[in-house]
Parts: sequence; C-alpha cells; structure tokens
Amino acid sequence: MTKPFAIGIDVGGTKIAAGLVNRAGDILHRYTTRAHSEQQPEVVIRAIEEAYRCLVKESRVEVTEIEAVGLGFPGNTNGPAGIVLVSSNLPAWNHFPLRDTLIERLGVPVVLENDTNLGAVGEHRYGAGRGVRNMGYVTFSTGYGLGIIINNGLYVGHTGTAGEVGHAVIDIGGPPCTCGKNGCVMAYASGVGISRMAYEQIKAGADTLLRQMAPPDGRRIPGETVVAAAQQGDAVAREILHKAGYYGGVGLSMIVEILNPELIVVGGGLVRIGSLLWEPMLAAMREHVQPELWDSVRVVPWQVGDDLGIIGAAAKVFADAEAHLV
Amino acid sequence: MTKPFAIGIDVGGTKIAAGLVNRAGDILHRYTTRAHSEQQPEVVIRAIEEAYRCLVKESRVEVTEIEAVGLGFPGNTNGPAGIVLVSSNLPAWNHFPLRDTLIERLGVPVVLENDTNLGAVGEHRYGAGRGVRNMGYVTFSTGYGLGIIINNGLYVGHTGTAGEVGHAVIDIGGPPCTCGKNGCVMAYASGVGISRMAYEQIKAGADTLLRQMAPPDGRRIPGETVVAAAQQGDAVAREILHKAGYYGGVGLSMIVEILNPELIVVGGGLVRIGSLLWEPMLAAMREHVQPELWDSVRVVPWQVGDDLGIIGAAAKVFADAEAHLV
Repeated sequence: MTKPFAIGIDVGGTKIAAGLVNRAGDILHRYTTRAHSEQQPEVVIRAIEEAYRCLVKESRVEVTEIEAVGLGFPGNTNGPAGIVLVSSNLPAWNHFPLRDTLIERLGVPVVLENDTNLGAVGEHRYGAGRGVRNMGYVTFSTGYGLGIIINNGLYVGHTGTAGEVGHAVIDIGGPPCTCGKNGCVMAYASGVGISRMAYEQIKAGADTLLRQMAPPDGRRIPGETVVAAAQQGDAVAREILHKAGYYGGVGLSMIVEILNPELIVVGGGLVRIGSLLWEPMLAAMREHVQPELWDSVRVVPWQVGDDLGIIGAAAKVFADAEAHLV
Repeated sequence: MTKPFAIGIDVGGTKIAAGLVNRAGDILHRYTTRAHSEQQPEVVIRAIEEAYRCLVKESRVEVTEIEAVGLGFPGNTNGPAGIVLVSSNLPAWNHFPLRDTLIERLGVPVVLENDTNLGAVGEHRYGAGRGVRNMGYVTFSTGYGLGIIINNGLYVGHTGTAGEVGHAVIDIGGPPCTCGKNGCVMAYASGVGISRMAYEQIKAGADTLLRQMAPPDGRRIPGETVVAAAQQGDAVAREILHKAGYYGGVGLSMIVEILNPELIVVGGGLVRIGSLLWEPMLAAMREHVQPELWDSVRVVPWQVGDDLGIIGAAAKVFADAEAHLV
C-alpha cells in the first residue's frame, strides 16, 4: 500500500532544505539548516538527521505514513548504488555510501540521487513535464547539468552519472572548467563561467562597472551582480550574459541532437535573468541543431521553481514506490 | 507464436543487400541489387520488392514463417511512424511513408528504422553488446552516427532521430558539415571529413602522395586511399587519419558524458583502418571525459561486422515481435 508522505531533503552548497511532501506535491512542513554540501560527511549527516527528526516531530506524522526520505546531493552520485562518487573536492566524500549510512541512522528507507536528476523527476511529475514521455531537465545555475527522463522514468546510465552535458567539450583548447578539462559547456554556461568571464574582462582592463562591483576578496562574482551591471547598460556585462546563454544553447543543441526529447525544461537560479540569457540560448540552440529538428522540441522554463530540490526528492520517492508496485 | 525467420534489408548508398535470417542470427540466403538509397523512391521500392520476392522464392520458406521484413535506411527516419524524414538530398524522400507503402506492396509486416539504429540492435542481440543493458553503437564510416540501447531496447527519441552525435557541434565556426552547419563531429570524423581534409591539404600545396592518388574528377577521396598513402609513410595522410580518429573520440566523450553507457561498440568501414584511427580515438575520448568516468565504459570494435546491415534489421524484427508478446 502506498503511504501518503515523503520527506524531500536538498543538500545544497549553502544550506540544507527539507520538507514533508504529500502525493499532490505540496510541502506541508519545512526545515532548513545552515549546514551544506561542502562540509565533511559527519556534519552533513548530522544535519540531515536533525532535519528528518524535526520534520517528523513538528508535523506529528507517523513514521509509518512516510514512504521514504528522498535526498538530493550535488556532484556525481551513483543513485542506484546509494553512493556519492565525487563532491566538493572533499576527499572524504569520494565513494561515500551516504544512502546506507542514513538508512542506519534514520531507520527509514532513503533514496539518494543527484540533485539535477531529482529536478527532472520533480518537473516531470509536478511541473512543466507532466505527461511527457521523453524529456530533459537542464539546471542552469552555479553549474550546468542535465537530468534525463526516458520512457517516463529517470535514466541515470551505467554508473549513475548520465546527463553530464555540462562537461561535454564544445571548445577544444578553450577556457578551463572546474572538472580539470578545457572548453566544457559549463566553462561558459554557468555561474562559475559568468564569474570567470567577468574577472577576465576586469583583468583585461575592460571598461565595465563590474570592476567596482566585484567582491573585494576575489570570490565568485554572483550572476545577480552581472545582471545588475547589464541593467545599468554595461556592455561588457551584457556580453558576458549573452555568452553564457549562447553556450547554454549549444548545450541544448547537443541534447536535441543526441536525445531528441519532446521537451527541455530549463531551471536553476540563472533562469531568473530572463531574456538576456534566454534569448541567446534559444538562438544558439537553433543555430546548432539541424533544421529538420527545429520543431521537434519545446524549451520551457521550470514550473516548480525554487522548491524543486525538496519536491523533486519527494517525487523520486513516490515514483520509486509506484515502480515497485508494478 | 514466434516465427523462425525474418528478412533483413539494408538500403545502402551503393547497393541494397538483403538476407533471410533465422533467430540465431545466421543469414541463410542472400540477395543483392545495384539499386541504392540515392535513387528515387519508386526505384528503391521496386528493388526492395524484388529482393523480398527472390529471397522467399529461393529459400522456399513459407511466408507464414516470416515474422516481418526489417528495413534499414540511411538518413533521418522516424521508425515508429514508418517515415523517411530526409535522405540523400532527394526531395521525393522528404516525409516519405516508406513502411506503409512496403506493407501494401509486400503484404507482410515491415519494420523501418535508421541503419545505425539497426546496427545497435544487431550488435546488442548478436554481437559485442550481448547482455549489456545500456550501450551505444557508433558507426564510423561515410558518416558518424550513434544508435542507443537503453534498458535493453532501442531508444529513438520523440521524433525518431535520437543519436545524431555526428551533428553535435564541437568546433564552433569550424569547417562545413554536410548538414549545413559548421564544426560538427562528422565534419572531421567520417569518410566525408577525411576526403574534405585531404582536398584541403592538396589545395594548400602540401607535400603529399594524395595529390596523385585523388580521383581525377574531384569525387570523394576514399578512406582506403588515405590509408594507402599513410602506409607509404605519407605524413599528411597520417595526420588526416589522426584527426578523424581524434574527433571521433571527442564524439565518444560526449556519449560517455551524456549517456554514461556500459559499452560503446564502434563499427563501420573506417574501423578497418585499425590503430591509425583507433588509438587517437581512444586517447581523445579519455582526454575529453572527466577522470572519474574513465573506467565507466568499455569501447570495443563491432563483432557482427560487414553483415550488420542485414542482421541488425532482422534483429529489430525479432526484438519487436518479442516485445509485443510481453
């Protein structure tokens, strides 16, 4: 018998957000901690445990009414194996058996998956992808990732890492990417790429407001800052956003050529930038797709939005439970 | 009840090859005509009809023992819809309902699919991919294409064209591709690309045997010619093959990043070139894949080999028949 609730937990780079979610996809209770994915495993695990126990206590839901905990994690994971492969350059996370550790601590079933993949499941079940059989969900934020829905189910590949279009090389010998390679889609189409391009322009002596707006300590220049400069008419900032959108569209073109999906949902923080990013993205996608495929795909923004981390994690729990019933 | 035979028909660029195939994947009778895919639909259809009737007659098999005709076609097809989308720049083929036309002419079920996709099904069922759940089959010949097996079945996408990794752009502003775009994988990694690079070198005045070996009428320089020059120590020819292999490997890296398959089988005429192509291909794949994915995939040459067109078409017939039984 199916149970009415799931707990969705999104381990992000600045916080851990959790929620009790019902089968309609509503978040009934929330819990947020300041722990985050760039901390050591024991810190993150304790924060997850705390989030779980507080949500159960606060909501007064019986544990027997909770299907499972769905856990979204950034970085490479092998969801079916329950393992974090690589995350945050912290060696302690390498091949860490996070799912089974949590099952032992919490005493309930746990579903672990990469956060972008959960975004795909969330948009497929509750958002812009409802009723679509084959789709991609692209997260366009600090990084650039892809979650793949094939035949109505999440496709994660042989070792769980499918969807790394952000690390497909589209500019051989191009700028460095966080992965150690050069010229990846993500080297341009991401918050990291936007910041890199901004610092490059500043160092090159470009005439831009970004020089004054950059953090004094050399930290990453947030996308919002570049948007603010662009809105004040800064041509350099506009060009940077255009480039990020353009290469994001090149990434979409690969998805169309290789996966031929019916729909691509684009979400993540950078979507808020709007047309300065969206228009060059769509134009570049079209430019790099064979004309006979132009009409094969729809590209739309996410619908679930900011809560996708929590709701996607819960959606995966419900989808898995239904698959086991079959 | 399953039937013991299928007829596999491979419509190629220089001939149509057909065979009666049993469920073990053996070709029991063969028929070949000089008709080919670059002719008008009526010519091709008549040749297919002739191949079918001759095979039935010669083999003395009852029509009731034949599951269906499997038909492989080059170019973009929508297999599930039974339609050729685009082929050979002949407008008469645009959105041609080839499957249903043949069903009417032959009076037996017909399965239509892109030839590379059938190669994937053939290698999965009878070749190097037996027992593998998620794999790619790359054809490295006149063009560069990908057939995708996911969860043991052929994945063709929303409009039937999935696997067009040959037309993923990896060199923005690069050399022209047959599709009208620039810098596609196939602009380098294909027989067409090899010929283009050879003519470029000849025109640029390079010191190469290819100048004498090129066809006098400016037609495509065959891969074999470039291989022959390379074997005579021609540095320009070696560099061309190296480049074709290298970009073929960049294509493989995209497949690994996006699809995370357990296995990639590489087939097609250019595989015969051997290590001059294979070694730069594997090196480039490794160079463009995140280190943590290096061991996620095996890359092997095809096993079915030259008969893959016929056997893959028959394999699809058998696979479809079994799926309908489920």
